[in-house]
Order: sequence, then structure tokens, then C-alpha cells
Amino acid sequence: MDHTKSHRSPKFGNSGSIPIDKKYQEDPEGSIDVLADLEATLDEVAKANPRIENEDSQSPRNNTDLKSILEASLAINSSLVLDDVLQIVMTRAVEFMQAERGLIMLLDENEELQIRSAYNLCKEEMMEENFRISSSITSEVASTGKSVYTSDALSDERFAQQRSVVELHLRSIMCVPLKVKGKVIGVIYLDNSSETRMFLKSDLFLFELYGQMVSNALHNAELYQSLLNMHQYNEKVIETSPFGTIVIDSEGYITTINSGALEIFDFNKDNLNRLNEEERRSCFVDQLIESEQAQWQHMINSAITSQEEFSDSRYFHNTGYLEKVLSIKIVPISNLPNGGDGVIIAVEDITEKVLMEKYVILSEKLVAKGEM
Amino acid sequence: MDHTKSHRSPKFGNSGSIPIDKKYQEDPEGSIDVLADLEATLDEVAKANPRIENEDSQSPRNNTDLKSILEASLAINSSLVLDDVLQIVMTRAVEFMQAERGLIMLLDENEELQIRSAYNLCKEEMMEENFRISSSITSEVASTGKSVYTSDALSDERFAQQRSVVELHLRSIMCVPLKVKGKVIGVIYLDNSSETRMFLKSDLFLFELYGQMVSNALHNAELYQSLLNMHQYNEKVIETSPFGTIVIDSEGYITTINSGALEIFDFNKDNLNRLNEEERRSCFVDQLIESEQAQWQHMINSAITSQEEFSDSRYFHNTGYLEKVLSIKIVPISNLPNGGDGVIIAVEDITEKVLMEKYVILSEKLVAKGEM
Repeated sequence: MDHTKSHRSPKFGNSGSIPIDKKYQEDPEGSIDVLADLEATLDEVAKANPRIENEDSQSPRNNTDLKSILEASLAINSSLVLDDVLQIVMTRAVEFMQAERGLIMLLDENEELQIRSAYNLCKEEMMEENFRISSSITSEVASTGKSVYTSDALSDERFAQQRSVVELHLRSIMCVPLKVKGKVIGVIYLDNSSETRMFLKSDLFLFELYGQMVSNALHNAELYQSLLNMHQYNEKVIETSPFGTIVIDSEGYITTINSGALEIFDFNKDNLNRLNEEERRSCFVDQLIESEQAQWQHMINSAITSQEEFSDSRYFHNTGYLEKVLSIKIVPISNLPNGGDGVIIAVEDITEKVLMEKYVILSEKLVAKGEM
Repeated sequence: MDHTKSHRSPKFGNSGSIPIDKKYQEDPEGSIDVLADLEATLDEVAKANPRIENEDSQSPRNNTDLKSILEASLAINSSLVLDDVLQIVMTRAVEFMQAERGLIMLLDENEELQIRSAYNLCKEEMMEENFRISSSITSEVASTGKSVYTSDALSDERFAQQRSVVELHLRSIMCVPLKVKGKVIGVIYLDNSSETRMFLKSDLFLFELYGQMVSNALHNAELYQSLLNMHQYNEKVIETSPFGTIVIDSEGYITTINSGALEIFDFNKDNLNRLNEEERRSCFVDQLIESEQAQWQHMINSAITSQEEFSDSRYFHNTGYLEKVLSIKIVPISNLPNGGDGVIIAVEDITEKVLMEKYVILSEKLVAKGEM
């Protein structure tokens, strides 16, 4: 992190904007389906409903707003993946407000604005002197928590003197804060240079509402992302553990198995996965050589019935072509995701260690004989 | 699960409806703040904006719809906790549509409708003969995926003959499907017996849109819940592991420590937590007795620099008042949540095992002497 810059110096995080159609195809949550559903519903209901059609002709703008804001609501809540939400929010904002350029900036852990999504603005443009006015507006909105709107930046005395307004012929700027529980988390910025697309003051009404929906959606995506990070971290801790780890549920099915355990038991991950596809789940004991199944079942049952740790510090695992000495610990675990109880089996391959110990004992014996 | 019932026999899951004010107080995501923000924005912008006020007077209903549906959107997306979302959705639906009673039913894993939230309907009422018509409507909507709307159930030939319509004087019923990616996941049902509160056909337009927003929000809440379950499961696997497990990051701070490790090192969880509050994080090596710190740091560094497992199968841990023999394995782990790398330390207290081995060796020695 670069700690030297302030709010006034936005940095570039995530460049450009992916065209919305492409993005939707990639979206695992299927926002395209949701929107298609909505379109169908709107058409269907409007046709069947004379009152809505009448309202439409009396006040076309208002009904369009309702439809647009609903579509926006569905779109921005259609994913919990933060980067997807940012892209959808950016593209929808530009479409919704008929803007030429747009930016979404979020405050980072050092309370500095970072650009997280941009539309029709490249990194170079944002570094230019011309962009200084826009940067000062985003900073103002982030620090005050109040929207900035100017229907004609040229005639607005606050901005008219600044170079970029004159040079870029900026006519219209809207920037609204994104707030979660009253605290600013970032801003959305839109601008238009064309006079024909000048923002109306009523656009700010919709854009502020849009900003509130966006804040909500981004907050949800952040909650999801942070839980996902913690989940992936725990998965990694289990996977990387120096012990073979297997968790089985009360019916004997494997709910977790790490690489260490796959190696010790010479299980083939692909076989287990193939079994998963067919039978949905693989039974641990069934994967073992038949001659060992009864003993493993007995050890597992011991831990389950006693609800205490079962351990065997020297288990001879012999599959016919493979001989290993294992140290086994089996502990009960309650409330698995399916609601039932189960056990964790932790195994260590101690074949080499046992071999070493034999040599130690042999040498002790020889020393003892020599002492006579 | 009861597999004997069909769609036509709804079962009761979650009774009654918590008053919305109480619910909001309990909501950890602070939806009350979001709604208060929205109200403030709406009032502020409407006052400052003559065009919106004009539109208001021309078409009061439509602008009220816009405001209501936006409030609903914010409310139902204000939490990712499934039960909270269900309660908010129920209460908002009843308020929004001015209904007397309401139900949210979701399909369970056996494709049976289960009542997940109810408003002004108790378990007994739903068991009564009178409720049979409502049950058949919810089943119809769930199986066809099409809304059912009847502005006057008494004059609707489909329902007029059925007893409950006559006896309950049901006038108005609306039931819309909840769909995710085109697949029905449940239904929302509302009814009114009073003629003055009869649903208009245009209400169905809004209610269907509401249904789509709800589907989205419930889907997000379900994704979050299922990730949370998996996360809690992994936490439990790590906590329950028969080995002491500590994860430390590249700066030496503890990111995970389970009960096994706390016991082996005689660490006090409260002390670690207290440290966490003050310094945010606890450094593992600093928690150890000073005389052992250098050796632990050396072992940890070995694993980090070699990026391979470091192990000591017989480490003598002596804190002055405590003597233990530990088996230690240290493995590198990459990409911790803070972005850096670290190590997993797995420890086992083998004090008793070592004592047993000493006896074995002693007896082997005696046997050897006897053999002479």
C-alpha cells in the first residue's frame, strides 16, 4: 500500500469496463436470466393491464424510472462477487443516467479513495491535469458525504474557473457518496460533456437512490468476499496440515480428505471424485482393502460410542503390495453440515521412524550384551 | 423429514411474524439506518426538486410505487441472514400490498413446500379445512411457475365452489412464484377478506416485481448461509483436530490457534484475546518462555526459508515448572488472508509415549542381559 497519497490523488485499481453483455455471459449467478425474466414479466403484465398502459402514456418518464431502477436493483444484487458487482454497477449507472464517463471509487483501509471500476476513462486521462477538477469533486463527496451535482459546470461559480471544466467543456457532473450504516465507503462519479445529454436535477434523485442500492449491494458482496477468504484460508490450513486428515460423517461418508491422507492410503483423488459424481459421496471404509475394513470400522466405532479420542500409535497397514506403519488418532466431531455427528481421522506415516527405533533398540541390546 | 406429504399439504416451519421494528433492532446489518438514510434522501431531494413534486401531483400512485419498491429493495437486500431476509420480505410484502395475511413458502430438498414465514396466520388456521383453497393455490403456483391472482375469489368460477372462499369471505388472493435462474424455489402468498382492501390487477404487476427482487435476495442469503456453514465446519475440523495446530503469518503473528495447542503450550486464551484487543494480534514466539524463543524462531525460519517441512520428533519443552516432550512439524503455507505467507505448526504432546518407550528399551536391555 502506498501511504503517501491523500484523498485527492485517486489511484487506478481496475481499468476499463467490460461490455455488459460479455460480463453477463460470464456471470455464474445468471443475472441475464433474472433480467430476461423481468423483461418478460413487465411486457406480459403491461399488456394484460390497461391501467398501467394508461399510466404509461400519462407519465412515460416516471414508469421508465420505475422499470430502470428495478432492473438496476435486480442487476446489482444478482451477484455476490465483488468485482462482478462493481462492473455491473458501473455499466448500469452509465446506461441508467446516459452518462459518457464514469468512475467508482472505494475507500481503502487507509481511508484513501481507490478507483475500482471505470467507464470510458483510461488511466492516462485520470493522471492528466484535466482530471484535477473531477478528482477534487470525488474527494469532496467522500469527505463530506454529500452529493455534488452541477447541471452546467461552466456556469457554476465553484468550478467555472478551473481549467479542466473549460478545456474539456464539461457541462454536467454528478457524484454521490456510497454509505453503509451512515459511513462513507466510496463514491460514484458520472460526467457528460455534451449539452444534449446534460443531467437534470431530477436525475440526481434517481442517482442518489441508485447509490443507496449500490452501497447495500457492495456491502453484501464485501461480507461474502471476506467470509469466502476466511473459508479458503481454513480449507488451506486443513489441506496443508502435515497430518493426513479425513473427516467422515455418521454414515461413514467422507466429507473432507486432504492430500496427506490421499497419499498415505494411496487413494486416487480422481476415483473418489468419480464416485462422488455417481453416488454423490464416497464411504471411507469401502475404499480400504477388504481385509482392513473390519478393523477400521471398529476403531471408528470406538471413538463414536465412547465420544473420546481413540488412538493407535502403531497400526500396521498392509494392502498386499504396500506396507506402512501408521499412527492413528480418531476424535469425534459433532454438528457436521448435514446436521449429524462424525469423526476426524488424523494419520501419520511413521514407517521410517519405526525403522529407526528398531535400530536404536538393536544397538541398545548390543550395548547391553557388551556390558556383561 | 416427512416424505409422505405432497405440495398440497404445507407444513409449518417458522411461525408468526416478528414485528418489523423489533426485527430491525436485532438486525446486525443495520437495515434501519439504510431506510432512515433513504427517507432522508427522498424528503430532501423531493423538496429541492420541483419537477418531482409536479410529477407527484400528476401521478401520485406511480411515485409512491417507485418509493415503495425502492424501500423494499433496500430492505430485503439489507441482510444476508436467511431468517432475517424472510422476516423482512414477509412484513414488507404485507405492508406494501396492504394485505391482511401472508405466507412465504420455500421448496425443501424433497421439492415440498415448507412455510418459512407467516403473517397473521397461525399453525392451527393453516391446518383447518378452510385453508385448503389457499394450499391448492400455493401448490398450483409452485408447480406451474405462474402467478395466481383473483380480485374477487367469490366470483371467480375456479374458486367460488370451494368452501373456504365462501366461509372466509375471501375476496382477494395473490400468489407469485419465487424463481432463481428460471427454477421455482418457492412462493409468496397474500390474501385479503375485506372488500375495501381488494387487490387491484395493477398490484400484481408490483407484486411480481417484488417477487423477483425477493428471489434474488433469498438466493444471495442462501449462498451466504451455505458458505457460512462450510466455514463453520472447517473451523470445527481445525479446532477438534487431535493435534495442537497454530498458524502464524510471515510476521510471526498467530492467525489460528486451536484448543490442543493452547493446552500443550499452557497458553491462556483470555490472555491471547486480551492481547488481540490491545495490539490486534499476538506474536507466537513472544508468548513462549524466553529461553525457548530463539530455538522456535530458528525452527520456523527453517521451514520458511527451505519451503519444506521441518520436523523434530522429540523436542524437549521446558518452561521451568513444566516439562514436556513434543513432536513438532512445521510446514509452510502460502497466501494467508492478509496476502502473505506463513507456517502451520502442528504439535503433539508425546511425553507419555516417550516414557513408555524408555521402559520398552529398558526391558529389551534386561532381556538381552538374560540371554547371555
